[in-house]
Amino acid sequence: MSWGVFDSGVGGLTVFRALELALPDAPLVYLGDTARVPYGVRSVDTVRQYAREAAAFMLESGVDGVVIACNTASSVALEDFREVFGGPVVGVVGPGVREAIAATRSGVIGVIGTPATVRSDAYGSRIRAAVPEMTVVSQACPLFVPLAEEGWTEGDVPRLAAERYLAPLREAKVDTVVLGCTHYPLLTDVVQQVMGEGVRLVDSASAVAREARERALAGAGGKNGDQHRFCVTDGGGAFAEVAARFLGYPLPALETVQLQRR
Amino acid sequence: MSWGVFDSGVGGLTVFRALELALPDAPLVYLGDTARVPYGVRSVDTVRQYAREAAAFMLESGVDGVVIACNTASSVALEDFREVFGGPVVGVVGPGVREAIAATRSGVIGVIGTPATVRSDAYGSRIRAAVPEMTVVSQACPLFVPLAEEGWTEGDVPRLAAERYLAPLREAKVDTVVLGCTHYPLLTDVVQQVMGEGVRLVDSASAVAREARERALAGAGGKNGDQHRFCVTDGGGAFAEVAARFLGYPLPALETVQLQRR
Repeated sequence: MSWGVFDSGVGGLTVFRALELALPDAPLVYLGDTARVPYGVRSVDTVRQYAREAAAFMLESGVDGVVIACNTASSVALEDFREVFGGPVVGVVGPGVREAIAATRSGVIGVIGTPATVRSDAYGSRIRAAVPEMTVVSQACPLFVPLAEEGWTEGDVPRLAAERYLAPLREAKVDTVVLGCTHYPLLTDVVQQVMGEGVRLVDSASAVAREARERALAGAGGKNGDQHRFCVTDGGGAFAEVAARFLGYPLPALETVQLQRR
Repeated sequence: MSWGVFDSGVGGLTVFRALELALPDAPLVYLGDTARVPYGVRSVDTVRQYAREAAAFMLESGVDGVVIACNTASSVALEDFREVFGGPVVGVVGPGVREAIAATRSGVIGVIGTPATVRSDAYGSRIRAAVPEMTVVSQACPLFVPLAEEGWTEGDVPRLAAERYLAPLREAKVDTVVLGCTHYPLLTDVVQQVMGEGVRLVDSASAVAREARERALAGAGGKNGDQHRFCVTDGGGAFAEVAARFLGYPLPALETVQLQRR
């Protein structure tokens, strides 16, 4: 079974890497919509439109299933993607929700993400649907993505930004924080430091990779992993360089593709 | 004569407002490509493609001339825009360059902008072409746009970020700094504070508005300014709210438009 990994940019390569390790024989197709990243500041309608275009691309690429690594697209456009793609689609919200519920002891969970993800309340509504007595405190952290991309993951600037963003979560005494954006794991140290060592951080990307791995293993085929494709909508910039950091090896080749309106 | 103002997002409304004050009778068309902002982190090819699409939109909208308020598009895609649009096109780089040359006494000029603007060296090459003995020190400040959009324009986080970004300009003892991005004027206070009171800040948006005003006045017609149009590619989000702050009055109406590939 071959899998596609869709993300708005480079962050979904964490999921790609986890899948690759779990399925060394499966060909994978990565699509990063680098010409239109970030999704988290856009309207629901626009993200839905972009997700439908990505789904059409994945359909044409011939993969059997898709993991949506982007939290924003998973939160507001999972059904749109499914409608166009047809086959199995795994979003990042469900696995993150399940892991957060398993991790919390106090029942007070914090969720941090992009403005679009937080506005959608995708994590909060699913956590409360599963366990109504849970309390969820959500906070958008718009500066975390540019901080991670700039490589400012330690020092005064990220610490002060984290203190400002995370104050409501500290006041609410959450014992678990969902990192609801693929970029946020790069800021794990500073978030852990500000929240305190006793607070458990849940990385949605790792959670979805584990779930996709279970499904993928169940349907694993015998194809060759050398057939991976890495596709972006903006082929310039620092993608290849950043990708090598995420993957642990240099990108073999990078295709620039155009997505079509649906 | 009717004018269009093209920007990647909301920042070009500073130019729109300056034009509106200068030309109370001229109908203006604003286009903010909010579905794909920011341009400053994309490749040259992608920005060129987006500029061609915006030019086609302006051509179809029937304006006589266009001001490109976006520094990135002005730096790398002015000719592409002109090629599609045909009529008069005023970019933001030329006016900023002229004002910086007039302002400097020491001949050492700093330029801050997006990664794409700085990589293009559009300001530096034009300054040196005009006055070869000038020294130009350029610095990309990727966090300034999200800081301005988040409204974090004073306090520790922007000050520490500015100290880090502006250190090379201080070391080079520049006496003039070009704010080469429409968002940066929102950070004027912190930039002035870090650079010191003796350093002159040049706002490209104001400079282009003045030049467009001169051209526009020369060809001013008698049409009614109530016919302004405000167009964006992503109609959701905070545009209307932020726009009101830029304009000083509530947005009368906001059109969502789709740009077509060229």
